[in-house]
Amino acid sequence: METVKYLLSEDRLPETWYNIAADLPSLPPPPLHPATGQPIGPADLAPLFPMELIKQEVSTERAIPIPDEVRAIYRQWRPTPLFRARRLEKALDTPARIYYKYEGVSPAGSHKPNTAVAQAYYNKQEGVRRLVTETGAGQWGSSLAFAGALFGLEVEVFMVKVSYNQKPYRRALMETYGARVVASPSTETAAGRAILAQDPDSTGSLGIAISEAVEVAAQRDDTRYALGSVLNHVLLHQTVIGQEAMIQMEMAGDYPDVVVGCTGGGSNFAGIAFPFIGAKLRGERPLRVVAVEPAACPSLTKGKYAYDYGDTAHLTPLVKMHTLGSSFVPPGIHAGGLRYHGMAPLVSHLLEIGAIEAIAIQQLETFAAGVQFARTEGILPAPEANHAIAGVIREALRCKEEGKSEVILFNLCGHGHFDLQAYMDYQAGRLRDYEYSDAEVAMALAGLPSVGA
Amino acid sequence: METVKYLLSEDRLPETWYNIAADLPSLPPPPLHPATGQPIGPADLAPLFPMELIKQEVSTERAIPIPDEVRAIYRQWRPTPLFRARRLEKALDTPARIYYKYEGVSPAGSHKPNTAVAQAYYNKQEGVRRLVTETGAGQWGSSLAFAGALFGLEVEVFMVKVSYNQKPYRRALMETYGARVVASPSTETAAGRAILAQDPDSTGSLGIAISEAVEVAAQRDDTRYALGSVLNHVLLHQTVIGQEAMIQMEMAGDYPDVVVGCTGGGSNFAGIAFPFIGAKLRGERPLRVVAVEPAACPSLTKGKYAYDYGDTAHLTPLVKMHTLGSSFVPPGIHAGGLRYHGMAPLVSHLLEIGAIEAIAIQQLETFAAGVQFARTEGILPAPEANHAIAGVIREALRCKEEGKSEVILFNLCGHGHFDLQAYMDYQAGRLRDYEYSDAEVAMALAGLPSVGA
Repeated sequence: METVKYLLSEDRLPETWYNIAADLPSLPPPPLHPATGQPIGPADLAPLFPMELIKQEVSTERAIPIPDEVRAIYRQWRPTPLFRARRLEKALDTPARIYYKYEGVSPAGSHKPNTAVAQAYYNKQEGVRRLVTETGAGQWGSSLAFAGALFGLEVEVFMVKVSYNQKPYRRALMETYGARVVASPSTETAAGRAILAQDPDSTGSLGIAISEAVEVAAQRDDTRYALGSVLNHVLLHQTVIGQEAMIQMEMAGDYPDVVVGCTGGGSNFAGIAFPFIGAKLRGERPLRVVAVEPAACPSLTKGKYAYDYGDTAHLTPLVKMHTLGSSFVPPGIHAGGLRYHGMAPLVSHLLEIGAIEAIAIQQLETFAAGVQFARTEGILPAPEANHAIAGVIREALRCKEEGKSEVILFNLCGHGHFDLQAYMDYQAGRLRDYEYSDAEVAMALAGLPSVGA
Repeated sequence: METVKYLLSEDRLPETWYNIAADLPSLPPPPLHPATGQPIGPADLAPLFPMELIKQEVSTERAIPIPDEVRAIYRQWRPTPLFRARRLEKALDTPARIYYKYEGVSPAGSHKPNTAVAQAYYNKQEGVRRLVTETGAGQWGSSLAFAGALFGLEVEVFMVKVSYNQKPYRRALMETYGARVVASPSTETAAGRAILAQDPDSTGSLGIAISEAVEVAAQRDDTRYALGSVLNHVLLHQTVIGQEAMIQMEMAGDYPDVVVGCTGGGSNFAGIAFPFIGAKLRGERPLRVVAVEPAACPSLTKGKYAYDYGDTAHLTPLVKMHTLGSSFVPPGIHAGGLRYHGMAPLVSHLLEIGAIEAIAIQQLETFAAGVQFARTEGILPAPEANHAIAGVIREALRCKEEGKSEVILFNLCGHGHFDLQAYMDYQAGRLRDYEYSDAEVAMALAGLPSVGA
């Protein structure tokens, strides 16, 4: 069956990032200083981030220019293609028209380089020599390693120990790009040593790895911290995805009735959805927007909207977000990029004001969706993206039931070339679903800080 | 530094494959029947291949139409991009201008789907229900599994046992696409059982796996065989690469002084080089063409140009090619796609008539080149492609020495996402080079058949 692909020429690469803060009826509550409980200012963030990123974090300008140097790198793989999933539609026998934006064409294989390149650029501009970060599954770490190599920045990655041991290939990719990778918890930081003193066999968590990275960045003058999701400026950089998709949907002569994205920290979801949500908030075009999260880490659907820390050692500011508590360690599902206890403040805020919906899907349903996608569309999706696909299939089957030919758009945020162990486990029947009782959720939430409550 | 990329719109996708047979001063010697020593005819090949592919195998028409249904699938990832390797040029401080065509953007990650899709299409057209093939590293097997999924064909892959065990992720990819994967030698064929009777611990070879696949295909009426390289029709299908590159080089305002490709069976090399060699043979544009092979499997540089079998059990026709002998088992270098004892008859013939050059490069030099490429250009190359890159770096450094700003074009035939074990081994110092003595080569060649000699 005919491939239907919508390509943009290079001159249609967006010249600005889209800042949804400009279109919100109200801004999300500000981050608070953990010691004082007062809103933080730029000076509090300066040890961690270059000033241009801090400005973007608090900006309410609708359009923020993308530097030429960043666009020059983007052009290696952007604009990314938009496909019509005709073969999947046929397999589902649905009247829905399904489109997907494919971010797996980037050198690191996901949407993450959209912000990694921007962050590396601003840090380089401000004289930073070394970037330090954390990574779980490794998508973010390898993207920052890629960006660091291009700009001549040293990159140090605290990799959650269980992934460090189980995913040596992800580590090898980062090292091939020239990054230094450290298993977390490590003895290189006070945060790491404290964890190891309590539990020498700790296999780590994203929250612990963030603590270690933040600690290192704060201590060295030539070093800054880089985060791959959650923060406003990170989500901002991803909006090239949705802006391109808007033009491509116009080329297709369609406009989405539903936009679907998977959510972990929230950045790929924001990337595809924010430009469309902006049009909705401005009263231009209505649509539904569905965030799909793993049932094993249900921050939007079962978490609490409250001030919480971003890390385990409580070195980060307090941010208001849907959270399962900073001590929550999600089970070892294969969508490692979705295993974070909190959700981006902007995404959380949009759920609160009713601009988006959220659903949680179990692991087995997401892998069944991913295999069906691979066999029809030919692309092997990342386990994170399988959540979006499972959500799309639900919508497409609803359309079939209701006899509606709605237009569904989703973000295929990355390929699954580094995730074949997950597919092997799925096909061997070794994966399982996770169901939380209310009591378990309440227990996870019991440790929330009282500051700002 | 600015990314320089040359993209073609979909309407520039070639409408025909380029058949170099039309421009050769003389045709390569014909394949011979192993029993009679006489040239084989279409009827001899009919149990293995559909008639349209047999016709392509012997055609001397210059342009062979690409069916619309095949172009429709190609459009999912074609035309592929051509890049100028500006960051690599800078790192090498060379006056050469280096361009690369990137075939890793296909769903299976290499150039192989160019022929897998065509072969699946013709088989489907002629009522075939099942395709059977062999695979070494897995690039070819996963490409055929992908193509089979799209056309609703069953795919069965005999995978060299050592790869089957060492590369479970490649197997998982094929199985995710729905293929059945069998470790070779297996007990499912007489050829496999004969090997196992001699050596129950045999880890297999490409030659053995071909024997098994050919045997199965020949026995079942609804089943045909598919080969991923070597044969004329396979090389033909790859010429979309070079035809696109010719237009893109024109967009760049350059024409290659040197075209470089890595060679195993010869298909990706043919894909990039044949259209340029055709122009040279027709007296339109001179240029050098360099085939780069692994020093561990030096068929072009140390093999003999002679009639030989394509497989171990001697079920295939005899073809005249540069060969190390059908019983030659190359050492376990990581460029699995280049570990074949013979070379495509067309590529062998071009070397004989002086239309191309060949060099062999050691494994360690190729990985050093691949790491340098990843850190400058951002793309992790497949170990096979590292051979082309190493050849390009040699040419670029020669240009520097001679003060010449030549134009170098190469085929980056695939990404290395499934080859990170190789990069780990390289970075840990576990890889080694292989040097053959004349005596060893003579021994490997001792078993060549006398037919056609």
